[in-house]
Amino acid sequence: MSGPHLARLLGGVSSERPVYAALARSVRGLVLDGRLALRTRLPAERDLAAALGVSRTTVTAAYDRLRDEGYVESRRGAGSWTVLPPVRMSPAEPRGAAPGGRFGRAHPVPDDATFIDLGCATPGAPSIFGEAVAAAVDELPRYSSGPGYEPAGLASLRQVIADGYAARGVPTRPDQIVVTTGAQHAFTLLSETLIEAGDAVVVERPTYPHALGALRRRGARLVPVGVNEGWDVELAAGAMRQAAARMAYTIPDFQNPTGQLMPAADRAALVDAGRRADAFLVTDETFADLAHDPRAPREPPLASFDSGGRVVTIGSASKLMWGGLRIGWIRTTAPLARRLVLAREPFDMASPVLDQLIVRELLLRVEEVRAERAESLLRGRDALAGALRELLPGWEFRLPAGGMSLWARIGAPVATLVAEAAERLGVRVVAGPVFGVDGVLEDYVRLPYVLPPDTLRLAVERLALACREVESAPAARPLPAYV
Amino acid sequence: MSGPHLARLLGGVSSERPVYAALARSVRGLVLDGRLALRTRLPAERDLAAALGVSRTTVTAAYDRLRDEGYVESRRGAGSWTVLPPVRMSPAEPRGAAPGGRFGRAHPVPDDATFIDLGCATPGAPSIFGEAVAAAVDELPRYSSGPGYEPAGLASLRQVIADGYAARGVPTRPDQIVVTTGAQHAFTLLSETLIEAGDAVVVERPTYPHALGALRRRGARLVPVGVNEGWDVELAAGAMRQAAARMAYTIPDFQNPTGQLMPAADRAALVDAGRRADAFLVTDETFADLAHDPRAPREPPLASFDSGGRVVTIGSASKLMWGGLRIGWIRTTAPLARRLVLAREPFDMASPVLDQLIVRELLLRVEEVRAERAESLLRGRDALAGALRELLPGWEFRLPAGGMSLWARIGAPVATLVAEAAERLGVRVVAGPVFGVDGVLEDYVRLPYVLPPDTLRLAVERLALACREVESAPAARPLPAYV
Repeated sequence: MSGPHLARLLGGVSSERPVYAALARSVRGLVLDGRLALRTRLPAERDLAAALGVSRTTVTAAYDRLRDEGYVESRRGAGSWTVLPPVRMSPAEPRGAAPGGRFGRAHPVPDDATFIDLGCATPGAPSIFGEAVAAAVDELPRYSSGPGYEPAGLASLRQVIADGYAARGVPTRPDQIVVTTGAQHAFTLLSETLIEAGDAVVVERPTYPHALGALRRRGARLVPVGVNEGWDVELAAGAMRQAAARMAYTIPDFQNPTGQLMPAADRAALVDAGRRADAFLVTDETFADLAHDPRAPREPPLASFDSGGRVVTIGSASKLMWGGLRIGWIRTTAPLARRLVLAREPFDMASPVLDQLIVRELLLRVEEVRAERAESLLRGRDALAGALRELLPGWEFRLPAGGMSLWARIGAPVATLVAEAAERLGVRVVAGPVFGVDGVLEDYVRLPYVLPPDTLRLAVERLALACREVESAPAARPLPAYV
Repeated sequence: MSGPHLARLLGGVSSERPVYAALARSVRGLVLDGRLALRTRLPAERDLAAALGVSRTTVTAAYDRLRDEGYVESRRGAGSWTVLPPVRMSPAEPRGAAPGGRFGRAHPVPDDATFIDLGCATPGAPSIFGEAVAAAVDELPRYSSGPGYEPAGLASLRQVIADGYAARGVPTRPDQIVVTTGAQHAFTLLSETLIEAGDAVVVERPTYPHALGALRRRGARLVPVGVNEGWDVELAAGAMRQAAARMAYTIPDFQNPTGQLMPAADRAALVDAGRRADAFLVTDETFADLAHDPRAPREPPLASFDSGGRVVTIGSASKLMWGGLRIGWIRTTAPLARRLVLAREPFDMASPVLDQLIVRELLLRVEEVRAERAESLLRGRDALAGALRELLPGWEFRLPAGGMSLWARIGAPVATLVAEAAERLGVRVVAGPVFGVDGVLEDYVRLPYVLPPDTLRLAVERLALACREVESAPAARPLPAYV
C-alpha cells in the first residue's frame, strides 16, 4: 500500500495531539472496521510522512505504538504489516492457536479483560424487585405452614395472570392457567402432552433453540418456515396442511431472534390456518411485554382470534422480570390445563412458592416494569446499532421495536467461525445455525442488547476483531503481500 | 343380635351420665372399630334394657341418638340396624353413591368438616424459616443484577452441600454437585441421562411412586425387589445381574413408604453388587436427615462405600425443610455432573435463585431443623400409632425410627377400596398398589404423620369408617339379617 493511498483512507491528519497517537488510533480504527485488511503491508515511514505532511519521527512513533498495541508487525527487510492484536483465553478452551501467540508475544486485550456474554439474552432484575420480594416475604407465612405443593400454581397468582389476559381482550379464568417453572418448562410440558414421536411440528426459522431441543427430544418431525423477512402466513398454512402438523410453534411478539412483530391480520390468518389444519398453535409471549415504546398500541394476542381452544399461550417472568425467578405459565382450556397439571407432577411436582408470590407482586406493578425495561432496552439497542454501524458497517439488521436482540446478517456464511473467534477474543455470541433446524442461517448472529452501552461497544470491538481474524483464516499466515 | 349378646359386647353400662348418651357412644364405638358389623339388627329396646339393667326409656333415647348421628336406621316392622353415618363430598367427585345419601338424609361429618390430606407426606416450614428467608433476601442483590441463570446451581450453595457430604465421611467438591428443581427433577434428569428405553432398572417394592413414573416415561424395564421386611441384598444383587440392570434405585434411609433403615453391612454389600453388575446405584436421601432421634448414630451414606463413581446420590430440601422450596441436588462425579448440567438446560434452564439462597441458610443451621423435625414427627408417629391400635387394631405396622410415614398392613387386599371410601369420608390416603410396579401391595396403605396429632386421630376415625364401609360392600344394601 502506498503512502498516498493510506493517507486517503486516513482522511488526513487529526487535529488531536500528540499527532503520533492520533495517527496510531486512526490506523487501528481502519483495521478494526475492516477497511484496512489484515496482512496489508504498510507504506514505508518516509512515504506516509510525506503523504500526510508530518515528520518521519511522528510516523515512526505511530508505528511503534501500533506494534505495542499488537496491530502491526515488522520484520527486518520485509517492512511492516497489519495484524490482529493478541487474544486472551476465554473461559472455554480456545480451539486454535492465538494468532499473535505464535510470534511469542503477549499483549493484554485492548480495553477490558472481562469476558462479555452475549449468549444469554436476559437482564438483571428491575428496580422495584426488592419491594416485590419484601411484599412476597410478608405473604409467605400464609403458605409456609402448609405442604407448599400447588401443582397448578398458587390460586392468587393464577388469578392475576388471568386478569392480565382479560385486560388484553382474552377473557380467562384461573382454571385455564397452569404455573410452570419457567417458559422452557412450559414448552417441555406441552411437547410431552400434545406431541407423539413422529408428529410434525411447524417451527419458525430462526426460532428459540431450546424449543427446538424440547421438540427434538420428543421425537417430533420439525418443519421450518422462514421468518427472516417476517411471516408468510400462506406458506405457514401450506406447511401445516401438507405436513399434517400436530402443532405450530410461533413467537409473534418481537420474535426471538429476529425481533419481528406479527401484524394483527397475520395473527387472525394464522389462527384460521391452524383451525383448518387441525393443529395446535403454541404461541410464546415471553417478549410480548418488551415493546421499546410501552405506550405504543399492542397487537392483539393470538388467543384473541381463537374460539376453539386451539391457541395455547406460554408466558414467562424470565425476560420481563428476572431469569433467577423460575416462573412461567400456560394459558389454555380448563380441560387441557388439568392434563398439563397431571403431566407436570412427575417432572417437578410444583413451582417454587416464593418465586410465585414475587411474580404476582411484579405483575400487579407490571406497567412500572415495562416502562423501566423499555427505557434501558432502547438505550442498549441504539448503542449496539451505533457501534455496529461504525465498526462493522457491512453487517445488516433491522431495528426491532421490542424484544432484546438484534438479528444481524454478517454478509458471509461464517457465523460459526466468527462466534468461535469471538469466544477466544472475550465475547460470546450465538451463531445463526443454533436458531435453525438444518444448519442454515450461517450468515446470521444474534446480538442481545441487555448489557450496558459501554459493554456493548466493547463487545462490538471484539466482534470486529473476530471478523478480521476469520477473514484472514484459514490459510496458514503467509508473509504479507503488497496490496 | 340378642340383648345379652350386645350387652356383653358393650361390657355393661358406663358410669357416665346421662346413661343414654354413654350407651349411644359405646354402640357407636363398636360400629367404628368393627366389632359390631354393619347391617347388624339391633336387639329390641326392651331386650337390651333388660340385659343391661336400665330402663327401656334409656335404650329408646340411646337408639334415637344413634339414629340422629346416623349409626342406626329403623323401619317399622323391620326393627333397627347398624349403618354408616352420612358422608360429605370430597374435593374429588365421588365415584359411588354415598351410603347414607340414598335414604335422603344429610348429616355433617362427625367431628370436623375439613378434608384431611394424608396423600402428601410433607410438613410446613420449620420455625427458623423466616430467619433463613430474611438472610437469603439480604444476599439476593448480589445476584439480582445479573442474569440469574446458574444451570449447575449457585456456587455458594454447592459448596455448603459438598461440605455436608464431607462431614458425613464422603469427601466432595462443589463441581460434583448439581442443584436441581427438587428431588423429582433430579430423578427425571438421571433417568434421561443414564437410561435408554428398554434398559432394566431394579427398584424397591414398595417405593416412591413418582420415581416409578419417571422410569416408566423413559421406557425402562422395571425389576422390583421386595423390601416390606427390609432389604435382601443377595436378592437385589441377583436381580441386577440377571436383568443386566443399568441402574438400581434405592431409598436406604427411612425408606418411602416402609420407613426401613438399611444397615451399614447391607449398604456395603449393595455397592459391591452394583459394581459386580456394572450398574449405577441411584440412592435417594430425601429422608436421611429425618431420624426421630437426631442424636442417634447415623448409618454411613451409600456413597461412602463407593470408589468408582457408581453411586449417584439425590438430596432434597422438600421434606426436611419445605416442599414449597423447589430445591434438590445430585452428588456424583464431576464429569457426570457436567453431563447433567447440559441435560437440565432444555428442561428448565436453572433453579430458582432465592430458593437456593434460602436452602443454603437452612443447611448452615441444619441441626436445628433436624431437632425440630424429630420432635414433631415423633409426636405425630406416636399419635397415629395410638389411634390405629385403638380404632383399627387389625392393622399391623412397624414403628419407624425416622421418616414421615407408617406403612400399614390392613389385613385384606382392599387398600384401593378403602382409599376410595376414605376419600368420600373426608380423608385421603394412598393405597399400596401406587407404590408398586405391578398392582400388588393391595393389603397396604401409607399413612404419613406430618399433620397434628388431633388431625391424625380424626383421620384414623374416618379410616375406620371407611373400613367398615368396605367390609359391608359391594353388595347392594340388603335388608338387615339377624346375626
